[in-house]
Amino acid sequence: MTQANHSLVLGVDIGGTKVAVGLVDRNGKILTQGRKPMVATATAEAAFQAVTDAIDSMSASGGGFQSIGICAPGPLDPKTGIVLNPPNLPCWRNFPLAEKIVDKYRVPVKVDNDANAAALAETRWGAARGFRYVFYATIGTGIGTGIVLDGRIYHGNTGSAGEGGHVSIDYRGPLCSCGKRGCIEILASGRAIGTRARTKLAAEPARHSTILELAKGDVAAVTSEFVGQAYLAGDPLAREILLETVEVLTPWFGNIVDLLDPDILVVGGGVAAMLRPFFDEIKNRLPAWCVNPRASDIPLVMAHYGPDAGIAGGAALCADDLP
Amino acid sequence: MTQANHSLVLGVDIGGTKVAVGLVDRNGKILTQGRKPMVATATAEAAFQAVTDAIDSMSASGGGFQSIGICAPGPLDPKTGIVLNPPNLPCWRNFPLAEKIVDKYRVPVKVDNDANAAALAETRWGAARGFRYVFYATIGTGIGTGIVLDGRIYHGNTGSAGEGGHVSIDYRGPLCSCGKRGCIEILASGRAIGTRARTKLAAEPARHSTILELAKGDVAAVTSEFVGQAYLAGDPLAREILLETVEVLTPWFGNIVDLLDPDILVVGGGVAAMLRPFFDEIKNRLPAWCVNPRASDIPLVMAHYGPDAGIAGGAALCADDLP
Repeated sequence: MTQANHSLVLGVDIGGTKVAVGLVDRNGKILTQGRKPMVATATAEAAFQAVTDAIDSMSASGGGFQSIGICAPGPLDPKTGIVLNPPNLPCWRNFPLAEKIVDKYRVPVKVDNDANAAALAETRWGAARGFRYVFYATIGTGIGTGIVLDGRIYHGNTGSAGEGGHVSIDYRGPLCSCGKRGCIEILASGRAIGTRARTKLAAEPARHSTILELAKGDVAAVTSEFVGQAYLAGDPLAREILLETVEVLTPWFGNIVDLLDPDILVVGGGVAAMLRPFFDEIKNRLPAWCVNPRASDIPLVMAHYGPDAGIAGGAALCADDLP
Repeated sequence: MTQANHSLVLGVDIGGTKVAVGLVDRNGKILTQGRKPMVATATAEAAFQAVTDAIDSMSASGGGFQSIGICAPGPLDPKTGIVLNPPNLPCWRNFPLAEKIVDKYRVPVKVDNDANAAALAETRWGAARGFRYVFYATIGTGIGTGIVLDGRIYHGNTGSAGEGGHVSIDYRGPLCSCGKRGCIEILASGRAIGTRARTKLAAEPARHSTILELAKGDVAAVTSEFVGQAYLAGDPLAREILLETVEVLTPWFGNIVDLLDPDILVVGGGVAAMLRPFFDEIKNRLPAWCVNPRASDIPLVMAHYGPDAGIAGGAALCADDLP
């Protein structure tokens, strides 16, 4: 390492299947990174061990750091760093993650959920640099969102603000895994796109589609990834499905704009990348879904960080600690 | 007047049909008030004259004030005090209201829309005193909302934040006057309740209802007020209509809670008063419409200010000027 320890922070991204770690500099550049498997079904201590193994691997590689920022599975309390009852990591119930990491490493520790942290990384170092009212959405298997106001994550009263993935635009619509109906997550996530594709293919078995070819003729094997690939290959059904997704995302963005009046909309995640050819379409339709007279001025941009958003996000939580 | 001038502010509430004014003390008490007719279809100057007549009537009654806070019809720019293109007051297009009032009275002037201003009055002096993350909704003929964070109106980037009345919960639902579909305003406002009642009465002409009696048998004359009166008289159809309104308000509040994580929900306006017997129903249903695990802790309360919310709101905009 050429940089002194005190100019780096460690970003940690804890998921249900892996722990990713990276040393990040004051410009948001990830200098080294690594990952360890996470065993979500293990005991709380075994899962914690996976985290410390990952952190230790960075220390072992010669990297020092002066604080640790962690993206952990929600719900969690960002004030205390306690992980409450994460569906993705059921072994951690009221688990005092921040406290235990502080005890072991004796450095400042911050914990937040992945979408909030990634929103902050985009604001500090990424696509939303210089913006004051940032709305960020990661559209992947699910949909997570974060709000950053004046450079700080907006947590609301209990730390649960910014759950835009569960804003409903169809209160009599399909049941989301959260128990609400018509959340944008059940309508526009990767899972939703997969469901749309399988439903259409099952309803029209005679219809030719590249989607089905990619799934080797097995409707049940169709996922959103195949829809994305088929779209790029010019498949009309794939285009139809992505346009339906745009059709629900636009009123949802309209709700966000009318409540929050952001100066930028940033989207990340695999489905966002897949929808990139439709960003102009969303922008063009957005004013019809906003009472805000300046909705058409709001940029809609792709996130800077891709799969490393969690590491960068964790690091961004500690960026104030950097000299 | 027993109080010195410098301890009072003047609150002005400009509507499409009237201008209401009042002298307000540092505790949010309205000491004297008056009103003048507004001629929305007049020239810009004639409408301005109505405002200054109302202000002058307070001065004439012996009241002095050290600043003027104005609730004006939106859309407007709260930073510059320019009224943009209000549908309720079409004669004011890009009208520099704040500047013209400053020129005439030589005191500090603030301008905001009625829901934002009323939200601030509730936070400073009313039902949300001591709360940090306040969501306020006035549910009357239409629905307006305001967000107050840490004692300040949240305006967003362009001053158009907090337009919760046009958050859609039914993107394929009925067309709102704003051009969007399924806004809570088209589903739960006084106008919406009137429409629901007329639709039901027309569909079931044989059904007996106190609502129709109150309208002297004329379905076209039915308004939300008759629904409220009929409910209090025990009418089952009125109850049905108000429960349908609760059914749409709950997912809407759920969206607000999941995005903003407020510590209180305050509602004012005639329809809110009519729905008061159903507040417990909304509170009980709310957790099913929130991913926020502490949604059931959030108080849902009636606003402190009733018809004077505009005067108090205007005054609240200037409350920082009070010694």
